[in-house]
Amino acid sequence: MPIQNDNPLVRSKLMSAEDAASLLPRTGTIATSGFTNGHPKAIPAALARRIASDGGEGEFGYNLYTGASTGEELDGVLARAKAIRYRTPFMSTPDLRNQINSGEVEFVDAHLSHLSSYIAHGILDPIDAAIVEAVDVASDGRIYLTTSSGMSPTFVAYAREVFVELNEAHPLELKGYHDIFLPELAPHGRPIHITSVDDRIGVPYVSCDPGRIRGIVKTHRRDHVEPFRKPDAVSAAIAGHVLEFVRHEVAFGRIPKNLLPFQSGVGNVANAVLAEMAAADWVPPVRMYTEVLQDSVFDLLDAEKLEFASTCALTFSPAAETRFHESISELRRRFVIRPQEISNNPEVIRRMGIIAMNTALEVDIYGHVNSTHVMGSAMMNGIGGSGDFTRNAYISIFLTPSTAKGGKISAVVPMVSHVDHVEHSVQIVVTEQGLADLRGLCPVRRARAIIENCAAPQYRDLLEEYLDHAIRVSKGGHMPHDLDRVFELHRRYADTGSMLPE
Amino acid sequence: MPIQNDNPLVRSKLMSAEDAASLLPRTGTIATSGFTNGHPKAIPAALARRIASDGGEGEFGYNLYTGASTGEELDGVLARAKAIRYRTPFMSTPDLRNQINSGEVEFVDAHLSHLSSYIAHGILDPIDAAIVEAVDVASDGRIYLTTSSGMSPTFVAYAREVFVELNEAHPLELKGYHDIFLPELAPHGRPIHITSVDDRIGVPYVSCDPGRIRGIVKTHRRDHVEPFRKPDAVSAAIAGHVLEFVRHEVAFGRIPKNLLPFQSGVGNVANAVLAEMAAADWVPPVRMYTEVLQDSVFDLLDAEKLEFASTCALTFSPAAETRFHESISELRRRFVIRPQEISNNPEVIRRMGIIAMNTALEVDIYGHVNSTHVMGSAMMNGIGGSGDFTRNAYISIFLTPSTAKGGKISAVVPMVSHVDHVEHSVQIVVTEQGLADLRGLCPVRRARAIIENCAAPQYRDLLEEYLDHAIRVSKGGHMPHDLDRVFELHRRYADTGSMLPE
Repeated sequence: MPIQNDNPLVRSKLMSAEDAASLLPRTGTIATSGFTNGHPKAIPAALARRIASDGGEGEFGYNLYTGASTGEELDGVLARAKAIRYRTPFMSTPDLRNQINSGEVEFVDAHLSHLSSYIAHGILDPIDAAIVEAVDVASDGRIYLTTSSGMSPTFVAYAREVFVELNEAHPLELKGYHDIFLPELAPHGRPIHITSVDDRIGVPYVSCDPGRIRGIVKTHRRDHVEPFRKPDAVSAAIAGHVLEFVRHEVAFGRIPKNLLPFQSGVGNVANAVLAEMAAADWVPPVRMYTEVLQDSVFDLLDAEKLEFASTCALTFSPAAETRFHESISELRRRFVIRPQEISNNPEVIRRMGIIAMNTALEVDIYGHVNSTHVMGSAMMNGIGGSGDFTRNAYISIFLTPSTAKGGKISAVVPMVSHVDHVEHSVQIVVTEQGLADLRGLCPVRRARAIIENCAAPQYRDLLEEYLDHAIRVSKGGHMPHDLDRVFELHRRYADTGSMLPE
Repeated sequence: MPIQNDNPLVRSKLMSAEDAASLLPRTGTIATSGFTNGHPKAIPAALARRIASDGGEGEFGYNLYTGASTGEELDGVLARAKAIRYRTPFMSTPDLRNQINSGEVEFVDAHLSHLSSYIAHGILDPIDAAIVEAVDVASDGRIYLTTSSGMSPTFVAYAREVFVELNEAHPLELKGYHDIFLPELAPHGRPIHITSVDDRIGVPYVSCDPGRIRGIVKTHRRDHVEPFRKPDAVSAAIAGHVLEFVRHEVAFGRIPKNLLPFQSGVGNVANAVLAEMAAADWVPPVRMYTEVLQDSVFDLLDAEKLEFASTCALTFSPAAETRFHESISELRRRFVIRPQEISNNPEVIRRMGIIAMNTALEVDIYGHVNSTHVMGSAMMNGIGGSGDFTRNAYISIFLTPSTAKGGKISAVVPMVSHVDHVEHSVQIVVTEQGLADLRGLCPVRRARAIIENCAAPQYRDLLEEYLDHAIRVSKGGHMPHDLDRVFELHRRYADTGSMLPE
């Protein structure tokens, strides 16, 4: 086995995580690698220890920018150290979520594809320090990222100084998985020459002037990824409806026989769709143009059904990671990891004709989708890339179980309590009950389709009654609503703990 | 003066409007040219006469697809003939609007840039007859459009048969204004090679197999365009705030000194911004990448402040049209008319860095925008291209007077009654009161900024009180709301005729 990560640059910049943490400012802006994984872990932990020993609450406070979600090792430890004041564009750890919802942390939920331009154009505060996880750093400053690309290329380009966590838990064979390309920014934009999921247009590393690398910290800490769970019956039913729809569209010539590239959100339902594809005889080898590859991609590989997958991150459970490492050299011909400006770019997404599948928290009868705010106020995780994909997809599909909390919450409501995806961009809604194809339907027809096909049986009469009432009181109305009653299900849930009448 | 429009093809297909109307099916799908103007006028009028004499209500019924809005001569006469059953993607005539809001006509409000793919991919019903207005037809079937491009290239490509209205009220010098290019559709998409507003990548005509041209009708009917109104004080104040903001961004280096291409919605407020630009000494010659050029573009030309304008339509009042005709040969170097797949294309818009300015009906304290539905139910016109531009703009600005109905309606509300543009895509809100820059702000800060800078004085305390109350009852909450009270202003207006308490 070669000695990893040894060269004059690494030797000259090598320091402990504590030393790196001590070089960070007490307040300012930190931007890190990470897109569901691949965030730095050693320096944040050391920073939290420094804050505990050296701080006094309120003396440290940061704006924290990342790719998308990170983990306990970054958002968790820094939230518990009360060190995050401002956070963008996405998060998913409980302590930070609580601080956001209590108003302690300012959070700006943003389309992932927008962040690069906000930083380059000076709309957000400038970055004092970028901390990126890497598998290797060459002596000329080429940084080879680990299992996600996220925002690292932009952060490295714009940060005042750069810290690298050289994570030796990753094999050096990860080198070559990335295709790092940052588009020219407006007004100097040029076409992005990706026309196929497997096109490579960049280089496999992030370039950085070695003089801007302030410190390099070695670590072996692995990302914590939850073990993979087999799809439950609800997820499998949702996946079944999606596959049936795709097959129907192929039969009608609206999707080509070799299908179209799929984007699939994170989570069990998305995994279930891939598992169903792997199992269905009629499904040919598929292409993916997505943000995160999860364990389920191995179902496709095992069934010889993965042609190629473009992603922004590989986020595998320990079991899947072992499989990945066993085949790491061969899989480089099947996977590419792109920065989120490219994985989520509207130009590329629209051009290729993506089938986008994302999860909804709730959907209303007219087809608006809430992806972010529970009961209109409490932030769950953020919009992430769902808007980037939905808005430009060939077909935009939203998936959700028809109920939550044991049936006490209906995912189908008269009006969503927060809108992340507007009626004009939502085409297909799927629950375990069935699928509503909203394309080309006027609002009232959309409402009938969603109630009939997607709502849980115990909520259908309530929703039909609301719709008929709204048609009466709004004197028709293109999109009939009664603003007195529009949130009556939500209000009943707040009052009684259930959207169903007692 | 040359004899216009005379060649073997024209002679062989020439017929009266009555004859053309008699060849249309009684039911089916008609798709026409037109994008605020340039819609057919003679054949629709003849069709309405045929329906009146030959019909009996209910015997005729059409799906009608257009570019964007048309006029009384098309939507108006066919609505009054009760001949429209289904309409997409946009409209603005009163009789049709009433039928949509009473539920008589099914209307599908759609992003203008999506329509082409919906037709090409067979998501909407196929087109029986396309009717396009032209200034000339060559004997090999090249169709030269009049003052808008809209959806005509796609409609001609996919219609079973084509009718042409040769409108001789337009000078033949219009030939050469259009740049007709239809992108390859997904999954065969290729980059669209427009990197500057004046790039031409297509041809100045729509090609059509002459065998598919069923009839050619000559007409001289002009489009009805309302006379231009000078900006009122409210519009001028809004425009002033926009210009001040742009100047501020230039000073901070976030907009280059030669500015960025502007997109400007239709209407008085948009006109006022261009008039202010023409009058402001510091403003250099500007570029426009927009949907509709109105009279105000002549203010820019007079002040030698128009570098180049890309548009989907030239919609001039009679006075401005006269000026246009006087300079029609020279202005061909300043204007290009593009199909809406290109004028509204997210790829091109994002690449060039557009400053997008669109009108809001209402905006909520957290920055969601309603562009379409009055009091949540009644359709005004449609989303049009505002979503195409807002979502991909370098800076997205929404403009609205702070009140309507003499102060009885506040344009700033706790929650908009319909969402067309989500918080993630709305950056700047402007009323005559002032401007709120929402970029990088968390929801509560956005709310304070909008209430303080944009709300009318008599509504500020009401909105502040709502916000403070919502923060209390939602126990913080990332986006504090009280769903019991969220529409109290709207409900009070419905009850009392004013959003203000008595």
